[in-house]
Amino acid sequence: MPHRILVIGGGAAGIGAAGGVKAADPRNEVTVYTEFEDVGYSPCGIPYVHGKEIDSFERLFLAQKEAYVQAGIDVHYETWVSSIDLHRKVIDVVGEGEVHWDRLVVATGFEYSDPGVPGGRLDGLYYVKNIRRAMEWDKVLDTVRSAVVVHATPLGLEMTTALAHRGIDTHLVDPQPWALADVVDPDIIAPVQDSWQEMGVHLHFNTTLTSFNGTQRLQSVGTTAGEIPADLAVLSTHKQPNVTLAARAGLRTGPTGGLVVNERMATSAPDVYAAGDCAELPHGVTRVGVTGLTGSHAYAQGKVAGFNAGGGTKRYQPVYVPWGTPAGKWVIGGASFGETLATALGLPFVVGRAEGISRARYYPGVRPVRVKLLAEPDQLRLIGAQMVGQEGIKERADFLATAVKFGLTLRDLAAMENVYSPAIGALNEPIVLAAQNGLDSLAGGG
Amino acid sequence: MPHRILVIGGGAAGIGAAGGVKAADPRNEVTVYTEFEDVGYSPCGIPYVHGKEIDSFERLFLAQKEAYVQAGIDVHYETWVSSIDLHRKVIDVVGEGEVHWDRLVVATGFEYSDPGVPGGRLDGLYYVKNIRRAMEWDKVLDTVRSAVVVHATPLGLEMTTALAHRGIDTHLVDPQPWALADVVDPDIIAPVQDSWQEMGVHLHFNTTLTSFNGTQRLQSVGTTAGEIPADLAVLSTHKQPNVTLAARAGLRTGPTGGLVVNERMATSAPDVYAAGDCAELPHGVTRVGVTGLTGSHAYAQGKVAGFNAGGGTKRYQPVYVPWGTPAGKWVIGGASFGETLATALGLPFVVGRAEGISRARYYPGVRPVRVKLLAEPDQLRLIGAQMVGQEGIKERADFLATAVKFGLTLRDLAAMENVYSPAIGALNEPIVLAAQNGLDSLAGGG
Repeated sequence: MPHRILVIGGGAAGIGAAGGVKAADPRNEVTVYTEFEDVGYSPCGIPYVHGKEIDSFERLFLAQKEAYVQAGIDVHYETWVSSIDLHRKVIDVVGEGEVHWDRLVVATGFEYSDPGVPGGRLDGLYYVKNIRRAMEWDKVLDTVRSAVVVHATPLGLEMTTALAHRGIDTHLVDPQPWALADVVDPDIIAPVQDSWQEMGVHLHFNTTLTSFNGTQRLQSVGTTAGEIPADLAVLSTHKQPNVTLAARAGLRTGPTGGLVVNERMATSAPDVYAAGDCAELPHGVTRVGVTGLTGSHAYAQGKVAGFNAGGGTKRYQPVYVPWGTPAGKWVIGGASFGETLATALGLPFVVGRAEGISRARYYPGVRPVRVKLLAEPDQLRLIGAQMVGQEGIKERADFLATAVKFGLTLRDLAAMENVYSPAIGALNEPIVLAAQNGLDSLAGGG
Repeated sequence: MPHRILVIGGGAAGIGAAGGVKAADPRNEVTVYTEFEDVGYSPCGIPYVHGKEIDSFERLFLAQKEAYVQAGIDVHYETWVSSIDLHRKVIDVVGEGEVHWDRLVVATGFEYSDPGVPGGRLDGLYYVKNIRRAMEWDKVLDTVRSAVVVHATPLGLEMTTALAHRGIDTHLVDPQPWALADVVDPDIIAPVQDSWQEMGVHLHFNTTLTSFNGTQRLQSVGTTAGEIPADLAVLSTHKQPNVTLAARAGLRTGPTGGLVVNERMATSAPDVYAAGDCAELPHGVTRVGVTGLTGSHAYAQGKVAGFNAGGGTKRYQPVYVPWGTPAGKWVIGGASFGETLATALGLPFVVGRAEGISRARYYPGVRPVRVKLLAEPDQLRLIGAQMVGQEGIKERADFLATAVKFGLTLRDLAAMENVYSPAIGALNEPIVLAAQNGLDSLAGGG
């Protein structure tokens, strides 16, 4: 029996959900509500257009609006959902009134945490999110001389690199001692920070934001380390689950603030599913909830949520979080935990490190690849990894996340075979070297 | 108690073995005998110097001769071992006489199979192996107008690409219907062959070599498809294990012609080990013996053989053979079997294919990545993979070989998390898409 399914949110999770609904049963009716003018574009590409690596915002669109019509997905653009009634199974849509659902998918995404300092209403404060606003801001960037990026989050790293690449005098402010300190270890981020300095970026770590200063327009950013003159501030603060609507309706949230879901992406309420940045998923190693993963995660979760909402049965598995991003002149990445996070979580671990290379030592374009592997001390099962390099970081991160998931050990990785072909891979794979070094240091009592 | 250990062969396996001997116990005495003027260089780099991707042969040397002296490894250059006496534990060295060993490592590598046609003694026939000869041949290449590469083996692919890149009018002759047909499937090699044609290479498949023609110098190459005028022929024929010496001494060989070794790399004779291209190793899926793997395999096997010869205990595991190489304008690679080999072996399998991309669809430099996964039909455990693309083929091949080894299924790969970051990886990892397509085609009865 087909269902009437509503999806709140038109990002990767919402669009994935709409597709999942139709995949489960093409007769299902699905309507997507989004506050924005568009769906089906890649917000992840925005920093690269600002940085001039990509020449046009148009390229970020994945599909024309017509494509969704063709697929039988009804999208209501620039539409606000003001409430969810779980009991009567309706949502209230501004201007449309009450709309009934058999099944509901909440895909309301994230919001940037409020920096909580005076001056937050000044012109010149840019929250990167919507592509139409990004197009407008891109014109502003042509006039900007000095910019402050507030907090070295993943987006902060991308925007710092993009603004510097564009030739803007760029400052990065973060209260922690190094960039992306919640996730990345200092030995992994160090080459990135060095490369930012080569690019002329001013780094302000251990520095807390205190104010945005100016009359109508931003003129400077106040920090505990002094005032930074700037005509632009990019607010890449922590992403928090956007659950206002869902929490008000009574859906249960977890310790991260994200909506609690089970392996079917079902929330605490019958017939209501959630996916993407608004949901909390268990980490595979600790089973502790995490939020704020990638667009790829959001899309995959959406597909599962939509498929189940549509009458199918699919499971989403705990996450091992492969990640990676260009930053400065490097690419960083990893899987699961680094040392910093493992230590914070109180997980015991042993470490294997190596300074490997990406191609044969003599092949043009060869670059260093630093690999660090964390394993639990008993069976030496991998619990996490971090890397800094250039080529193949993304593919290694995917592999290492899978290696953590399937319980591979340092011994397994030390005995791993690898491709050797001068132009594409070195005699010794850096992951193998790191695993061997880890075993050697254990054997040596080190 | 330290041992006196002799190593016959100075390639990757022999040098790995010498290092392994010292790693097991630095007091061990180790002598390496090589017929060549050098050890510790990368023969795998030779095609790339010929192709002008690498600017000098000097770059291919990993270490100065002095480094081996420092490491306590005694290398006898340009030295011929004429016999092995297993009973008296001596080898006969031309000009040195009998030399006693406690333990022996045979690392005599491969030889190219004889093409078995008239004219094999003409000038202008080049067997790529020794770096000194390669330096001489590189000068000859400046004068060559037209070259024939005999057989589309891995080296044949590299040399075809290199000669074409260098601007030489290049022909590739092979008796099989497509290049590398023993290993690679036609849908994987097709883009490579297309790119060779774009580069001006003349492809002669289903074509058998019949003669080398000329008086003193090569003037043409005779084939079943006609005569090809040429002043150079590169003989990249099948690599066969070089076991003349070892077989004469009575060491047991297997069906491939390679020396039979156990997991400690010990041969059929007490205190004699073998490693590298002269040894036969079991394939992890079939347990059938294979030879002719990569320099990385040879080096790793050498280390195990040497470590065990030196009094230690290490095991070498069955191989799952990740492989990869640039070819034409592409990079091809894989792990374990493709369809052609699986079919030839009589293994039942199901297939998942995908045409993925290497970066976000809109990111400059994005390239297609074709992935094909083979799984056994019952549990859907991966048994092999092949790919053609550009970025990340080597890292994916390493991963997929490990996935085969650890019994991952199409379901596991379909549910795999992946890095999504526009400049380094697409929303959907091509491996995941291939696995999902494989499952979908099964579900659809396709």
